[in-house]
Amino acid sequence: MIRFVTGNENKVTEVSEHLDVPVEQFDYDYVEIQADDITSVARAGAAESYDAIGDGDAVIVEDSGLFVHALGGFPGPYSAYVEETIGVEAVARLTADHPDRTAHFESVVAYADGNRIKTFSGRVDGLIVPPRGDGGFGYDPIFEVDGQTLAERTTEEKNELSHRGQAVERFAQWYRTQS
Amino acid sequence: MIRFVTGNENKVTEVSEHLDVPVEQFDYDYVEIQADDITSVARAGAAESYDAIGDGDAVIVEDSGLFVHALGGFPGPYSAYVEETIGVEAVARLTADHPDRTAHFESVVAYADGNRIKTFSGRVDGLIVPPRGDGGFGYDPIFEVDGQTLAERTTEEKNELSHRGQAVERFAQWYRTQS
Repeated sequence: MIRFVTGNENKVTEVSEHLDVPVEQFDYDYVEIQADDITSVARAGAAESYDAIGDGDAVIVEDSGLFVHALGGFPGPYSAYVEETIGVEAVARLTADHPDRTAHFESVVAYADGNRIKTFSGRVDGLIVPPRGDGGFGYDPIFEVDGQTLAERTTEEKNELSHRGQAVERFAQWYRTQS
Repeated sequence: MIRFVTGNENKVTEVSEHLDVPVEQFDYDYVEIQADDITSVARAGAAESYDAIGDGDAVIVEDSGLFVHALGGFPGPYSAYVEETIGVEAVARLTADHPDRTAHFESVVAYADGNRIKTFSGRVDGLIVPPRGDGGFGYDPIFEVDGQTLAERTTEEKNELSHRGQAVERFAQWYRTQS
């Protein structure tokens, strides 16, 4: 059994599809640190969650962000905060001031079992565009891959491109090789 | 003697002017947590620094941020990160889209001595404007108080308005009442 420390049930379902062992949601609000890279954020979150829960079961946490290259990686680790404050359209407008519209989504899964902390990442590259499409959530309407924004795709099409799916799959492959 | 945990010598000089006891700079890189309020960030930083240094001397840390009201408090606790990525002019442009241009600078000093953690804050209210003035640093050129941006004032004039000065003065007043 693996504990997934998150408040998001949808993420638990997504992760379960990649793993051969049961995944249990654990709703513990670990501290997210300020760091330019989400690997550090996820690593610290997994370590703290493992210690705080304290019953010896392994935990995973997942963190993700959108990194706009012309904006020095903004909003990066603060993607959720920026979405809630200035909003995703503002990120598109800021990017429109620059010739380089490239960006990437990154996801990191961090695993902690008391002996070690391991991290696994996934990445999808795209372009920042004015909002298009009604599907998805968050930054999906302004993130274009192969001519379509993520909000213009079906959930299935979007999941095939998923940075989170990649990170979880990499974790799952490693986890199968353990004990 | 009080230890001021910071990488910024200028801050140490500013704080020393408010205190009757020696202030020693200690350059320890504590973890900044993600939180919407800088009081939580400073509190956690002081607690961690006190524990990490470990010799029993009291420590203070200081954190500050610019909170733009129309932007839900953005950039707030992430002011330094936002300055380094999208820049202060971008914050002025984002604010120009809104009728409400009010904002405030806030500073929090957190003190930890092993028995307790105390926090003290200072605040200056103003308006976000297109950049004006050559003085100051950071968000000073886009922050206007009484018709002048902070970058249009002398250092002395600016310090009279200082949110950091207020927070430090409040800490100093309390500290004098302690043994």
